[in-house]
Amino acid sequence: MHDTPITMPQIGAVLNMLSIVGTFLFAASGALAAARLRQTIVTFAFFALVTGVGGGTVRDLLIGAPVFWVVDPAPALTCLNAALIVWLTPRRWWSDRALDWLDALGLAAFAVFGAAKAMAFGVHPFVAAMMGVVTGCVGGIIRDLLAGEPSILLRPELYVTAAAVSAGLFAALRVLGVDLPVAAIVAALSGFALRAIAIWRGWGLPGYQRE
Amino acid sequence: MHDTPITMPQIGAVLNMLSIVGTFLFAASGALAAARLRQTIVTFAFFALVTGVGGGTVRDLLIGAPVFWVVDPAPALTCLNAALIVWLTPRRWWSDRALDWLDALGLAAFAVFGAAKAMAFGVHPFVAAMMGVVTGCVGGIIRDLLAGEPSILLRPELYVTAAAVSAGLFAALRVLGVDLPVAAIVAALSGFALRAIAIWRGWGLPGYQRE
Amino acid sequence: MHDTPITMPQIGAVLNMLSIVGTFLFAASGALAAARLRQTIVTFAFFALVTGVGGGTVRDLLIGAPVFWVVDPAPALTCLNAALIVWLTPRRWWSDRALDWLDALGLAAFAVFGAAKAMAFGVHPFVAAMMGVVTGCVGGIIRDLLAGEPSILLRPELYVTAAAVSAGLFAALRVLGVDLPVAAIVAALSGFALRAIAIWRGWGLPGYQRE
Repeated sequence: MHDTPITMPQIGAVLNMLSIVGTFLFAASGALAAARLRQTIVTFAFFALVTGVGGGTVRDLLIGAPVFWVVDPAPALTCLNAALIVWLTPRRWWSDRALDWLDALGLAAFAVFGAAKAMAFGVHPFVAAMMGVVTGCVGGIIRDLLAGEPSILLRPELYVTAAAVSAGLFAALRVLGVDLPVAAIVAALSGFALRAIAIWRGWGLPGYQRE
Repeated sequence: MHDTPITMPQIGAVLNMLSIVGTFLFAASGALAAARLRQTIVTFAFFALVTGVGGGTVRDLLIGAPVFWVVDPAPALTCLNAALIVWLTPRRWWSDRALDWLDALGLAAFAVFGAAKAMAFGVHPFVAAMMGVVTGCVGGIIRDLLAGEPSILLRPELYVTAAAVSAGLFAALRVLGVDLPVAAIVAALSGFALRAIAIWRGWGLPGYQRE
Repeated sequence: MHDTPITMPQIGAVLNMLSIVGTFLFAASGALAAARLRQTIVTFAFFALVTGVGGGTVRDLLIGAPVFWVVDPAPALTCLNAALIVWLTPRRWWSDRALDWLDALGLAAFAVFGAAKAMAFGVHPFVAAMMGVVTGCVGGIIRDLLAGEPSILLRPELYVTAAAVSAGLFAALRVLGVDLPVAAIVAALSGFALRAIAIWRGWGLPGYQRE
């Protein structure tokens, strides 16, 4: 695993675009958490960075890949841009509802990208699906911890589940031999659709009920 | 350190069993934290995974070893099984008292296993003992952080101390030339005994008293 | 990145001293957080360790370097010594004000050292500056999370900013060809001066004000 070359295996333009879009959307959600707390521009930058690259960082460390934003300055610059845009634009451009939808797109994109990258590094498909969940969810978890907000994990809403559907479906389709771009798009849309229903209808999973 | 082969050096069947048992017990304690919070099955799985493999993950990252549950799907499956079992079985099977005892077993097992794996990777015995403490305690610390509970670290009860006794004694015995299985069993039992007294008698360390 | 020899490239006696002094000062601040919580000696040691080596650990993991305190027992021993000294000496030796100044020194020292180490490992100067910020700030962030205190990140006071000035100035001066010891001293003093003004005059950044 440690002999992996720094240049990540080619995993497709679709996926790379998913990663950049996801990074920007999550970074913006981090900066907005800082805005709600009336923080400074430096905190905006820090929250944007942690939320935007946090999940991918944990994934890369776990699979033994060089950390993507350390070997290439572009993702960190994307996060700082997101922080600056949120800082400079009117607050009403960023309604909670609009954000939920952007976050849903980022979640599905990151879940598929994370699973794909892990499989490209030779990780077992079952574990690769978990890496997709990590990529999608960890940034938001760290953001909530830093901001002292209740973790996204503890809400009954379908969130981690949507990431699990995207990542798991992608891994399953790839194991079944489906072409990478098709598997990526089908899996990302499925997870996004589930999350969309959760936002739209308030769907969630039942909580533990035993006495 | 990075040339280490992926196949971990053979550190004995006793230790491998300690690791599997510890993973299951900690994963169950994570799932029970989710049950107390009336969470969903997905949160159960996440908490079980983080608590079951968290300590070992930090250890592997620190010593430069491939992360154990990424190169082998078995530990993650063990955690998901633990989550499912807690979800499906009656709540009264899992009394707080019973759990404390299972957790004590897991703590001693993980502390010894962590120190042994670190020494097998060429880490200095003093640092290896600290890796044992990390392996035993970090999963529970992350679980408490995610669940918003007061950290196990902040309770005066002998907990980290028990892990330190197990891990430190194992490292010391190995430096003195004691056979691995003997050192492992003596060290695990000593830490477990200390933790048992803490549970049974409420023993703890004195807090800082200066004005 | 993974072929890097374990012996870190020679980055100068000045920097190595900065690292040791910074480790001790941060470890002491961690132990004092434990003292405020009336904790036990074991918690003192844990807090000292996490605060003293936390930032450098995250940096080393991110840049793919062997974790500095795992390949060499000295930093961990420094942290344990700091914990013991805080435990044994009178509380009034450690006034909050005195500590702020020591912490300011540690912050500047760590920020420069972190950026220098990252550049020595071939990291892009822009990302290397961020590694300096991580090295300076992460230990304190983890300490606050564990202790349940409001994060240093969320205070308007110039803190992360001071680390960013030290780390960014160092990287910029090095890119411009300035000698390492000169760049290190100028950068560390600049960040320290900014932090000193923040402590002395209560300077801070403005918070986000939009409706």
